[in-house]
Amino acid sequence: MSKMADEKVMGPPANGGGEDGMLAGELSSAEGRVRPLETLLRAAPLGLCVAAMAVMLRDTQTNEYGTVSYSDLGGFKYLVYANGLCAAYSLVSAFYTAVPRPATLARSWIVFLLDQVFTYLILAAGAASAELLYLAYNGDKEVTWSEACGVFGGFCRQARTSVAITFGSVLCYILLSLISSYRLFSAYDAPVPSHGSKGVEIAAFPR
Amino acid sequence: MSKMADEKVMGPPANGGGEDGMLAGELSSAEGRVRPLETLLRAAPLGLCVAAMAVMLRDTQTNEYGTVSYSDLGGFKYLVYANGLCAAYSLVSAFYTAVPRPATLARSWIVFLLDQVFTYLILAAGAASAELLYLAYNGDKEVTWSEACGVFGGFCRQARTSVAITFGSVLCYILLSLISSYRLFSAYDAPVPSHGSKGVEIAAFPR
Repeated sequence: MSKMADEKVMGPPANGGGEDGMLAGELSSAEGRVRPLETLLRAAPLGLCVAAMAVMLRDTQTNEYGTVSYSDLGGFKYLVYANGLCAAYSLVSAFYTAVPRPATLARSWIVFLLDQVFTYLILAAGAASAELLYLAYNGDKEVTWSEACGVFGGFCRQARTSVAITFGSVLCYILLSLISSYRLFSAYDAPVPSHGSKGVEIAAFPR
Repeated sequence: MSKMADEKVMGPPANGGGEDGMLAGELSSAEGRVRPLETLLRAAPLGLCVAAMAVMLRDTQTNEYGTVSYSDLGGFKYLVYANGLCAAYSLVSAFYTAVPRPATLARSWIVFLLDQVFTYLILAAGAASAELLYLAYNGDKEVTWSEACGVFGGFCRQARTSVAITFGSVLCYILLSLISSYRLFSAYDAPVPSHGSKGVEIAAFPR
């Protein structure tokens, strides 16, 4: 992130969208205030995802009952992939955000959509792994699934750590998608009360 | 829902453009079109959630190996609860949206936050149940979990239906949270360097 200061503002937006210059100006003034917070929020999941991935990747236990590794469980493999993808995205988007550049509508849309996708991706991975972990701890008598954690306690503790870290990055992503949707949609005017459609006057707020 | 018919649908937007004034006009007419769509999108998960819940609640199979019911599996119980909550929320919010009323900032915030919460809730439930289903179909040799679906095929098929329906409502909720974040954040000005709207912009950044 120390590169920030040295980095030159990437040339004029080579936007193929034909965006409006006025809009770009308005948006960049918003960025000034949010950028530090957002860059932090984008950098945080990078650390968290790499940590969660590392913990999970090294999660193997061998004892007299056999060997169990994260790759034996589909849910944990998905967690590793999801964390890897999110780490890569965080890296790219943290740099992207750290460098001041005029935000165009097209860029705001791209960041917004990617944030949404990755938020859902990492949340789904976290939920699936949490379910898997729940089963590993509690088993299920009706379907004769044993409590694997009774035998592989170390494995389960490590997996639990990884899942917990993952939920940390889920939180960051939720905040990020709030910020990027603010950034995108505040670029649009509020729907003005218009002829014919009753009660859409968002413009006037009694606060 | 019959109220929708009264509502006037604004003409189609002139396409392309991209200028600011143009955008405002397009969007306010978009608002006229968005309400029926939004009401539909809010009503749809009501049906989907109730269907998913009903399918799951009736999901019991008894054979010579024993009896298995959705309530034996924590993930499926969570799915039922989540679907129940979402159905209730959809009912309330569909009625709320169907009635045209002036949107205030406080209301937009409430709808926005609730949409976010329920989207994450139902997605997490769907992901956890999908993981459970995956295990039921494939088992896991390393941790000696058997393929429960070999024995309880009917149970698994019905659970799969329920999970599939749930993902349908996840889709609806994702679209809904896009709409409500558009509605909320477009109410905030894209920060213009001048004008007394600074307070509003600052308030836009939560925490």
